[in-house]
Amino acid sequence: MQLAKIIGSVVSTRKCDRLEGMKLLVAIPIDMDTFEEKGSPFVTVDTVGAGEGEIVMWCGGSSSRATEMTTNKPVDATIIGIVDNVDILGKRVFTKGAL
Amino acid sequence: MQLAKIIGSVVSTRKCDRLEGMKLLVAIPIDMDTFEEKGSPFVTVDTVGAGEGEIVMWCGGSSSRATEMTTNKPVDATIIGIVDNVDILGKRVFTKGAL
Amino acid sequence: MQLAKIIGSVVSTRKCDRLEGMKLLVAIPIDMDTFEEKGSPFVTVDTVGAGEGEIVMWCGGSSSRATEMTTNKPVDATIIGIVDNVDILGKRVFTKGAL
Amino acid sequence: MQLAKIIGSVVSTRKCDRLEGMKLLVAIPIDMDTFEEKGSPFVTVDTVGAGEGEIVMWCGGSSSRATEMTTNKPVDATIIGIVDNVDILGKRVFTKGAL
Amino acid sequence: MQLAKIIGSVVSTRKCDRLEGMKLLVAIPIDMDTFEEKGSPFVTVDTVGAGEGEIVMWCGGSSSRATEMTTNKPVDATIIGIVDNVDILGKRVFTKGAL
Repeated sequence: MQLAKIIGSVVSTRKCDRLEGMKLLVAIPIDMDTFEEKGSPFVTVDTVGAGEGEIVMWCGGSSSRATEMTTNKPVDATIIGIVDNVDILGKRVFTKGAL
Repeated sequence: MQLAKIIGSVVSTRKCDRLEGMKLLVAIPIDMDTFEEKGSPFVTVDTVGAGEGEIVMWCGGSSSRATEMTTNKPVDATIIGIVDNVDILGKRVFTKGAL
Repeated sequence: MQLAKIIGSVVSTRKCDRLEGMKLLVAIPIDMDTFEEKGSPFVTVDTVGAGEGEIVMWCGGSSSRATEMTTNKPVDATIIGIVDNVDILGKRVFTKGAL
Repeated sequence: MQLAKIIGSVVSTRKCDRLEGMKLLVAIPIDMDTFEEKGSPFVTVDTVGAGEGEIVMWCGGSSSRATEMTTNKPVDATIIGIVDNVDILGKRVFTKGAL
Repeated sequence: MQLAKIIGSVVSTRKCDRLEGMKLLVAIPIDMDTFEEKGSPFVTVDTVGAGEGEIVMWCGGSSSRATEMTTNKPVDATIIGIVDNVDILGKRVFTKGAL
């Protein structure tokens, strides 16, 4: 799994039926070395009520369909948790709200 | 999921039976930082009636088979929606027809 | 899906039983910007009777098992069609036999 | 599969139900040429009781759900073993505890 | 599928039960342009009795579980054949034992 920051949203009216009612968010990868943004934004589906500015954990590939909300959906990136803390080598390197 | 722009089409007569009747489009990735084309074109299967010039959302891997039209098909990139708007940090950065 | 050109073949006698009788071809990626070879060759399994020099469409990952011939086979790159034409922005950029 | 070194942990309170009780660790890839860290840290789920500083073997994609603990879970990187030794070209290049 | 050369092995005592008895080999990618080593070594599971120095064909992702030996196992890279010959553009570029 990887971390990302929620930075926006996508609206699509003409879409696959199975996506009806799903919240499509734009996220940007967060590098866990620096806790800075790194790489290109992507679209992800929310299953935990994430909001703009929050750091989330997401998973990709077929595993992104392994939640109640995304079963059998054509999604390849799903937010699976909002990150509270990250500790690296015994030091707290991230606390929710700090980024 | 990622965004891409439809730029063309592919015709294949001698192909896997399961692809019979599927519309094969050429898409080019759209970077959501700049909303410019970035990367190499690829072939994708259309499930929403996308047309040339439209910005679409697509998914890859096994999830590209998770639509009614693509179930059990040998496809690894499926268009799952036509993008109307993208908002990033409270600003509308893309509106359908603008690219 | 991606395009590739068939450039060779692989013979493996001691192999997984499920691969028995499958035609293993060497393909090289074709970039759809330039229609030139780009990247490293890879091994792919043929399901459509492709021959050396032909431009084919292939799919990867679990979708490469979604053909009659490759169901339950340990393959991660399958040729699913021989390309006749590619049109980009209203121009025919590739016709079978041209490369 | 790849090797990685456990360097930390992630806490997420608001998360997908199916992740309840899973240990989320931060790992950094270990290059098997040099046995040094290489690349960006990522989040992985522990199934073998790995601890900080240990070199582990992990697998990704759908295979990361192929353990008793991770079946049907939205995880795409799972620790599947703690590495005791690695031999390359007849030489022991890694022994547990050495890194 | 890709080619790789077997260069070593990994021992892991504390591991996922489902890996019990599996032979874990270290392989290094072989570029089919030059037939030289290219890229970083990785861990793969053997299903064909490959030995050090042999050039093998392997597959990744979910397809690496599509052999009798690896069904439902948490593996994402499986050796599926020992390569005898590779022909490119009508020339034999590799014969078993030559590398």
